[in-house]
Amino acid sequence: MVEVNNRVTMAEVAAAAGVSIPTVSKVLNGRADVARETRDRIERMLAEFGYAPQPRKTRRAGVIDLVFTELSEWATEIVRGAEEAALALGSRIAVSAVRGDAAERNWWTSLASSRTDGVVLVLTELAPEHRDRLAALEIPMVAVEPVSDSDPRIPSVGAANWAGGLRATEHLLELGHRRIGTITGRPSVQCSQARLDGYRTALRRAGVPLDPALIAVGDFHYESALAAASTMLELPERPTAIFAASDLQAMGVYEAARQHHLRLPDDLSVIGFDDVPMAAYAPPPLTTMRQPLDEMASLAVRSLLAPVGTGMSERVELATSLVVRSSTAPPGEATTP
Amino acid sequence: MVEVNNRVTMAEVAAAAGVSIPTVSKVLNGRADVARETRDRIERMLAEFGYAPQPRKTRRAGVIDLVFTELSEWATEIVRGAEEAALALGSRIAVSAVRGDAAERNWWTSLASSRTDGVVLVLTELAPEHRDRLAALEIPMVAVEPVSDSDPRIPSVGAANWAGGLRATEHLLELGHRRIGTITGRPSVQCSQARLDGYRTALRRAGVPLDPALIAVGDFHYESALAAASTMLELPERPTAIFAASDLQAMGVYEAARQHHLRLPDDLSVIGFDDVPMAAYAPPPLTTMRQPLDEMASLAVRSLLAPVGTGMSERVELATSLVVRSSTAPPGEATTP
Repeated sequence: MVEVNNRVTMAEVAAAAGVSIPTVSKVLNGRADVARETRDRIERMLAEFGYAPQPRKTRRAGVIDLVFTELSEWATEIVRGAEEAALALGSRIAVSAVRGDAAERNWWTSLASSRTDGVVLVLTELAPEHRDRLAALEIPMVAVEPVSDSDPRIPSVGAANWAGGLRATEHLLELGHRRIGTITGRPSVQCSQARLDGYRTALRRAGVPLDPALIAVGDFHYESALAAASTMLELPERPTAIFAASDLQAMGVYEAARQHHLRLPDDLSVIGFDDVPMAAYAPPPLTTMRQPLDEMASLAVRSLLAPVGTGMSERVELATSLVVRSSTAPPGEATTP
Repeated sequence: MVEVNNRVTMAEVAAAAGVSIPTVSKVLNGRADVARETRDRIERMLAEFGYAPQPRKTRRAGVIDLVFTELSEWATEIVRGAEEAALALGSRIAVSAVRGDAAERNWWTSLASSRTDGVVLVLTELAPEHRDRLAALEIPMVAVEPVSDSDPRIPSVGAANWAGGLRATEHLLELGHRRIGTITGRPSVQCSQARLDGYRTALRRAGVPLDPALIAVGDFHYESALAAASTMLELPERPTAIFAASDLQAMGVYEAARQHHLRLPDDLSVIGFDDVPMAAYAPPPLTTMRQPLDEMASLAVRSLLAPVGTGMSERVELATSLVVRSSTAPPGEATTP
C-alpha cells in the first residue's frame, strides 16, 4: 500500500469528515471499499482543505519491479541497464516473468506482501485490472518497447524502429543487393510494423519493387525464422540478402543458410535487429541494428526514481545504430542468376 | 536490520539487564557499538532466560537477492529459475551485478535501505567483510557454482562438473575421435578444474595419451576461445574434436573453424558445456553438456525460503546430461592426416 506521509493534514481531514485516518487514506489511494456517501464527504473535505499528499519519494521501498513476459537473450541487456541505473540510485531491481494469468496473480501477491517504487513493463502488457490497480495505488509505470500504445497512463521508452528498419535495408541496398527478403516480428507488436514499414520505404525510395514472396511474417523467434528463410532460399529467384527483425531470427536464417550449403556473407547477407550479445558470437559475427536496450531500461528506471513530476510523461524513442560485422557483403558472383 | 519478533522476552531481558530493548537487539544482531561490559551483562541474561529468537520467517522482506559478478547469457537461465521458484513462494528476486568494489558498496547500501530474506551468490564472491556482515545479520546465503569452497558458512549448489567433463569427452571418444582438444574455463574457479580432470580421466581410461598442445587455458569467454582454437587448428596434427568448457567458448571455436574453412561437424566436432539458449540457435545447433542452471537457482532460492533449519547446509551437486545436437559426428575422411 502506498503510504502518504502528510499525517497532520490527513488527521485534520479525518476529524473534519468524522472518519478515521485509514478511511481517508483509502479514499486517497482510490480503494473501492469506502461507502459512496463517506467517500463524497471525504473528497469534499480534501478539496476544501487543499490537501496535497507529500511526494511518495520520502519513503522509498528501495525496489523497482521489472516485469517481462519471458526472459530471453533480450532480457539480459534490459536487466543489466536497469540494474546499473537502480544501484547507482540506491535501489534494487526485482525481476519477474509474468507469462500467463497464474504467474501474473503470483506476481501481484508478492507485490502486495512487500512494496515497490515503480514498475517497468518490458514488451508486455498487464491485464487491464492490474494496470488500474497500480494506477489507483499511484505506483508509477513505464513501458519499455510497449506492445501497443493503448494505455495513455503509461509512458514508454522505445527504439526508433522505423528508422532502424529503413537503415538496415539501406545498408543492404548500398552493398548492391536488390533481392532483399525480410522476416518480420510478431505483427501484434507495434515495433514489428514500424520496422517493416522502414524496409518498405527503403525499397520504394531505391526504386526496387516489393515482392510479397520476400516478406515473411515471423514472431521474433528462431523456429519460425528458420522455416521462413528455408522457404525463401528455395525460391526460383532466391534473395541475396535477408533483414531479420530480431537477432534471434537472424540465427534462424544462419541455420537455413547452412542447411542449404550457402556461405555467409559470400552467398547470402544477413542483417539482424537488437544487438544482443549473441550477435557478436555468431559465426560469422552478425551485422545488426543496435537498439540500446540497456539505455532504454536505464532511462525507464531513472524516470521512475525521479522526483515526482519530473519523470517521463510521454513516449521517448532512442536512436538505433548500424553495427557492421561480418555477415553482410556485396552480392557474390555465385548468387547472380 | 534483522528484527527479532519475540518482543516480550526481549523486554524482559532488557529490564533484567537494565538496558533498553534496542540495546538487547544490537547484541543479538552482533553489532559492535555496545560497550563490552554491557554486552557481557546482556549475554548473561540472554543465557539465563534461555532467550530464543523467533525464526525470522515470521516477518519476511519478500525479496531474495541474486548477486552476479556479470550478467551474461548464463545469467538468464539462473534468473528464470530463481524467479519462478520465488514467485511460487510469494517472493520476488532482486538482481544485482556487483563487479568491482564500487558496485559492491552500492549494492550494500541499497540492501541496507531495504531488506532481504537471503542472498544467492552466483559464480561470485563477496568481499570477506561483507560476508561477515551478512552472517552477523543472520541473513542466509547460498552460492550457485561457487568460485571456491573456502567459506564454510555458505552452502552451495553446483553441477556435477567432473562427471560432465568425463561424459563430454567420452561422447567424442565413442564417435571415434582420438585427437581431442579442450579449452578450459577460468582456472581460479573450481568447476573449471573439475571439468578438466573429467576430460583427462576419460582420455586416460580410453588409453589416449594426453597432448599438452591440445589443452588450452581459457576464461569462459569467447575471445580467448577463438584465439586458442585458432592456434589448435593450425597445429601440424590438428584436433578432430574440441571440448569447450562453456557454450560461449564453443562459439569461439565455431568462429575459428569458419575462419579456417572447416565445416562443422564434418571437419571438426565441437561440444560445449552449459546448454544456454544460444546453444540451440548456433549454426549448427551445439551438442553440449547441460547443467540445469534453472534448477540450481531454484534449489538455492527454495533453500533460503525454507523454514529455519530445513534449508541446505552443505554442497549439493545436480547431475549434468549430454544433449546431442548437430555439432558432433564421427571424424570425417577429410580430417585424417
